[in-house]
Amino acid sequence: MGPHPAVAAIRLAVRRVLHDVLRELPPSPLGPAEAAPGNRPVVLVACSGGSDSMALASALAFEAPKLGIRPGAVTVDHGLQEGSATRAVEVASHLRDLGLDPVDVLGVTVGRQGGPEAAARDARYAALDSAAQRYGAVAVLLGHTRDDQAETVLLGLARGSGTRSLSGMPAVNGRYRRPFLHLDRDTTRQACLVQGLPVWEDPHNADPAYTRSRVRHEALPILEKSLGKGVVEALARTAQLSRDDADALDGWATRVESEVRDADGSLDATRLRELPPAVRRRVIRRAAVAAGSPAGSLFARHVEEVDRLVTGWRGQGPLHLPGGVEADRQCGRLLFRRRCSSDTLGGTQKPAGARQPTPDPTL
Amino acid sequence: MGPHPAVAAIRLAVRRVLHDVLRELPPSPLGPAEAAPGNRPVVLVACSGGSDSMALASALAFEAPKLGIRPGAVTVDHGLQEGSATRAVEVASHLRDLGLDPVDVLGVTVGRQGGPEAAARDARYAALDSAAQRYGAVAVLLGHTRDDQAETVLLGLARGSGTRSLSGMPAVNGRYRRPFLHLDRDTTRQACLVQGLPVWEDPHNADPAYTRSRVRHEALPILEKSLGKGVVEALARTAQLSRDDADALDGWATRVESEVRDADGSLDATRLRELPPAVRRRVIRRAAVAAGSPAGSLFARHVEEVDRLVTGWRGQGPLHLPGGVEADRQCGRLLFRRRCSSDTLGGTQKPAGARQPTPDPTL
Repeated sequence: MGPHPAVAAIRLAVRRVLHDVLRELPPSPLGPAEAAPGNRPVVLVACSGGSDSMALASALAFEAPKLGIRPGAVTVDHGLQEGSATRAVEVASHLRDLGLDPVDVLGVTVGRQGGPEAAARDARYAALDSAAQRYGAVAVLLGHTRDDQAETVLLGLARGSGTRSLSGMPAVNGRYRRPFLHLDRDTTRQACLVQGLPVWEDPHNADPAYTRSRVRHEALPILEKSLGKGVVEALARTAQLSRDDADALDGWATRVESEVRDADGSLDATRLRELPPAVRRRVIRRAAVAAGSPAGSLFARHVEEVDRLVTGWRGQGPLHLPGGVEADRQCGRLLFRRRCSSDTLGGTQKPAGARQPTPDPTL
Repeated sequence: MGPHPAVAAIRLAVRRVLHDVLRELPPSPLGPAEAAPGNRPVVLVACSGGSDSMALASALAFEAPKLGIRPGAVTVDHGLQEGSATRAVEVASHLRDLGLDPVDVLGVTVGRQGGPEAAARDARYAALDSAAQRYGAVAVLLGHTRDDQAETVLLGLARGSGTRSLSGMPAVNGRYRRPFLHLDRDTTRQACLVQGLPVWEDPHNADPAYTRSRVRHEALPILEKSLGKGVVEALARTAQLSRDDADALDGWATRVESEVRDADGSLDATRLRELPPAVRRRVIRRAAVAAGSPAGSLFARHVEEVDRLVTGWRGQGPLHLPGGVEADRQCGRLLFRRRCSSDTLGGTQKPAGARQPTPDPTL
């Protein structure tokens, strides 16, 4: 008799990703399975102790050795809850019991930049990156499921900034991989249950102070009630389709950019006008960002205003974009200039451009 | 003192659309304002008697004569509620009081095809089309607001079929125009209130048996609570951005299609492979539809299966698509063939392709 279907599902998902990882490694004289233990490629799992990442850790522990991979784990102590350090040590102990090695507990200090969720995420990824570098890990696995993906799409929808913001979390992003993006949370819970894995659910996940928690516990259940079962699947599919669409259009914009942009960064308005609006606005956006407007503060409405210099030209004056960037039309070209702080603010204040773009919410 | 801001807003929205309509008319020897009343261009408003369309009718009655346009109205009696015929006559009387002429009451028979909402919509548009033809109307105005647009995007999201399904209702679709897509429902309500217009709210709009009603009264309020105010605006902006993206990608697919497609409708697999997935899948989709697969039954997962004949080719057999269409790879080309009913079903049954595509939900 084979394993329980939930366990089979999580193992298959991890096996596929490990195969992908191995395929992309530079060829070695010895296959990975024959390499000495110290020379085997390391794959880490980021584990909070919750069911998603515990299931992921168990599947990695099972699959990695068969492929000559050394499975390790990192658990991050955010220091935001009482007893978090003790709990991190417990999680690490469970991970060692699964056969993972190395297992690191990393304490981080969570700042305030971008709100509590973004700050915790930034601190977490910094810790994961440092562990990955320390062990020369070829991949770091993350336990996000299809349910997390659906939540991310809804959060992107609330930003209303288009196809890219609907594309959720990528399955692959540099060293990070998400084997469970096509599995639902119930599967990971069941896999933990039938394997007798101890699971710790972060109370933050149920705290309505957090937007994601409200989306999970309020918005998605009501959407399922209103729109029918299958909403989570539809949202996850939207993520994939939106990502492909955004990639194709970004590629188009990159190619066009080199044709309409001069060395000084200015754009040819006549040629811009011939482009489909979706491509034109992307080219404009890139030019504004290249001139110093922070990507996280440059909204669709800013780009649309600049677009009117192309499509609704009637001699209007320069436009002010975030980051102290000015967009202007002169002699049939769009010019993007960053004002010096001394020009506009008497040299006493920092220009708005000193703000940093908000961190990429898709990581 | 000018009109109330809500009244000013609805009039401005209608004036802009009427200017667009006039600009697109073939030039006449007399300007429209000088034409004899019988020769003036007719613009109709579709009016249910609800606040959105009553506000629209009032603004059309106010703005049209100043531009030499003859404003008329159509109210459709769906015959689905007791007293609907009487009510339609009352609405027509209010519309005549506003100065609209002609005003038609059209009774329709609602079928069952595609569910109650789709069937009512199909019957309604058939009636509106016939009235538009009878009066030679240059445009038919619809009262959909930004709130309706947000609801439509959520309904599209639930289908999970990508960027096009998120693009909501178009501002212009043939003779149909939606002047209020950027105004919210509160504005139209207020405009009716301050103008003392009698308003009839369709009880179907509050009936939880209808998906759109559940979206309006359950899903959107909870989304606003979870994600913050501005969700309606974000959804409406998503519609516009998604429409532009979908248009650009459809245009790309059209250009590419002529390069990779032979006269027999087959596609060059090697050249397909070089395309971004978003474009490749669109080309595949169009080829399948051209071969007879009904657009409304051909889902993303079907297209993805065919896509694997390109990206994951290992000699697999032909695939069966909706409408009895077979997709196959032979000698480096994708072939799409509609099977004869006698081939596959013994000539006794109609092939599945006899099903009609579902009606375009964006109209």
